[in-house]
Amino acid sequence: MKIAVLPGDGIGTEIVAEAVKVLKVLDLPLDMETALVGGAAYEAKGHPLPEDTLKLAKAADAILFGAVGDWKFDKLERQFRPEQAILGLRKHLGLFANFRPAICYEQLTHASSLKPELVAGLDILILRELTGDIYFGQPRGRRTATDGHFPGAEEAFDTMRYSRPEIERIAHVAFQAARKRNKHVTSVDKANVLETFQLWKDVVTEVGKEYPDVTLDHMYVDNAAMQLVKQPKFFDVVVTGNMFGDILSDEAAMLTGSIGMLPSASLNAGNQGLYEPSHGSAPDIAGKGVANPLATILSSAMMLRYSLNQPEAADRIEAAVKAVLASGLRTADIWSEGTTKVGTRAMGDAVVAAI
Amino acid sequence: MKIAVLPGDGIGTEIVAEAVKVLKVLDLPLDMETALVGGAAYEAKGHPLPEDTLKLAKAADAILFGAVGDWKFDKLERQFRPEQAILGLRKHLGLFANFRPAICYEQLTHASSLKPELVAGLDILILRELTGDIYFGQPRGRRTATDGHFPGAEEAFDTMRYSRPEIERIAHVAFQAARKRNKHVTSVDKANVLETFQLWKDVVTEVGKEYPDVTLDHMYVDNAAMQLVKQPKFFDVVVTGNMFGDILSDEAAMLTGSIGMLPSASLNAGNQGLYEPSHGSAPDIAGKGVANPLATILSSAMMLRYSLNQPEAADRIEAAVKAVLASGLRTADIWSEGTTKVGTRAMGDAVVAAI
Ligand SMILES: CC(C)[C@H](C(=O)O)[C@@H](O)C(=O)O
Ligand SMILES: CC(C)[C@H](C(=O)O)[C@@H](O)C(=O)O
Repeated sequence: MKIAVLPGDGIGTEIVAEAVKVLKVLDLPLDMETALVGGAAYEAKGHPLPEDTLKLAKAADAILFGAVGDWKFDKLERQFRPEQAILGLRKHLGLFANFRPAICYEQLTHASSLKPELVAGLDILILRELTGDIYFGQPRGRRTATDGHFPGAEEAFDTMRYSRPEIERIAHVAFQAARKRNKHVTSVDKANVLETFQLWKDVVTEVGKEYPDVTLDHMYVDNAAMQLVKQPKFFDVVVTGNMFGDILSDEAAMLTGSIGMLPSASLNAGNQGLYEPSHGSAPDIAGKGVANPLATILSSAMMLRYSLNQPEAADRIEAAVKAVLASGLRTADIWSEGTTKVGTRAMGDAVVAAI
Repeated sequence: MKIAVLPGDGIGTEIVAEAVKVLKVLDLPLDMETALVGGAAYEAKGHPLPEDTLKLAKAADAILFGAVGDWKFDKLERQFRPEQAILGLRKHLGLFANFRPAICYEQLTHASSLKPELVAGLDILILRELTGDIYFGQPRGRRTATDGHFPGAEEAFDTMRYSRPEIERIAHVAFQAARKRNKHVTSVDKANVLETFQLWKDVVTEVGKEYPDVTLDHMYVDNAAMQLVKQPKFFDVVVTGNMFGDILSDEAAMLTGSIGMLPSASLNAGNQGLYEPSHGSAPDIAGKGVANPLATILSSAMMLRYSLNQPEAADRIEAAVKAVLASGLRTADIWSEGTTKVGTRAMGDAVVAAI
């Protein structure tokens, strides 16, 4: 089983090192190869997603990804910015199904901005379509406006689009995921304004007929942003497009109060996947040994389950993380009075010991 | 001073009636004329925004709007659905600046999903551009895909766009509003992915140079959705596009826990404006006399201040609403143990009495 290890920037190297350590004690035939990505790759090779990194990723069964980005790259031309690496990997590998669980761990409920009764036991799966929508739609660019409010003025534009089969395949993933959970799918759209999301709603409704055992409801994106705050436990599986999913998955993650715990998976039609923490590269704490490696460690568990077909190994990692939390160890981001503060490495070591 | 009164659907008629009652006791030369809009207009005249309603609105100094929409219109062709009325009014009157305050009233802090210390005293102004972006961009529609993942498949598409002058004018509104508040503007974009929002960021930055006394920062929309939950009091004025503003203004409103209290204003370049509550038509409680009229009453205060240049009258209404809250009267949506539950009319009467 071939794994491309792409630590990236900021805290990426530190947290990925811990996940690799955990994977190694599982005694599985894992062939892990590391490559540069993001700002680190740009600095060394002039491109955030160099040819050999892309080649390695394509040839792997799964990619373990850290994080990319740093303020120092903000002034670069867009094509050279770190985040182009992640967009490029999604596109070139066809990683259309992004699983973003928002889980509130029992011991961390107090860390949420929300009142405990609203988030205790929260377990939502946001399923974000990841290769379509306004992220990749053509044409896009700058031009002189020929109509609208200010004809003759400079304008910038992008194209939102979804085709029927793109919507169908993500809808099937949503309904199948719901079958293994609480059999409830909420499809989020803006069909009252956008042509793209009228088609989205129509197609999800059609696909839903093949899953009569799953309850389907539709919600406008503005309402979804509200209901996540008002009654997050209403949701089970939320399926939506790339742009709305970007916003709602982060909102949902933050509701839990412990985004440093949340893994993610991005899969293609062949179950090849990219696994990364839900949080970013946090350049402000990079190199200090204080970052929380658990989201990355839990991402490696998702990798074992979804791409490498090793559910028992995945279970072992997840059980170990729970045991470590129960033992009271906490990195700074989730620390609270009465628990023991530890650094990145000590947290990784504790998970290894618990396995 | 001419006011077009458009109650609309659902609870719209009940709540607008209370606002009209309040306006009448102010003893101002207000010429109020009522017309049909939304589903009510569709049923009576075959169109959600009939010619004579639009004419009345155009000729008025301000529009007092209730709410539109009901499930029974969900199956209509898009052009006949109630929400087309509000989109049409925005477009035909050029109402590009949407003011959406998110205020947490002292007595209602407990109603928020968030912990009280995070929202006590919250006072954010979300400024949403309202006549551009993907809401109105052309072309849009359905077609056969010629490229992308599934060439040959049916696809739907929309166009996101902003021109430089459109961004300039909303940016000026944001900076000027911030000058009267805490002198802090957060511009929300997705410049790392969208051409439209790279221009947005560039132009807001340029305009910001004319307001050296105002602090400007930039935030990606996904991060903004998170920070609103994590530390809402970080924000003062948030300025963003039509689509992101739709989502974030509702999220921010819900954070306060009392969306039934939140007014809104949508202004054009001549300060003509449309004033409506932030909440919707709530068909489930329509006709029961239990809806909260305060958001609409407070919208009429905004109308007096922004479009009719009657700041003292606006102050009187706002002070009366505060007094009524302090006296312990509450409609069902904001009721809690120890306060007195009243209906829509009794609440309007109480505001009148307090004036
Ligand atoms: C870095 C950025 C391009 C990316 C996105 O918008 O998809 C990020 O926000 C994410 O959610 O993975
Ligand atoms: C009804 C709908 C078209 C509208 C919008 O999306 O603008 C509403 O959500 C709003 O925010 O006023």
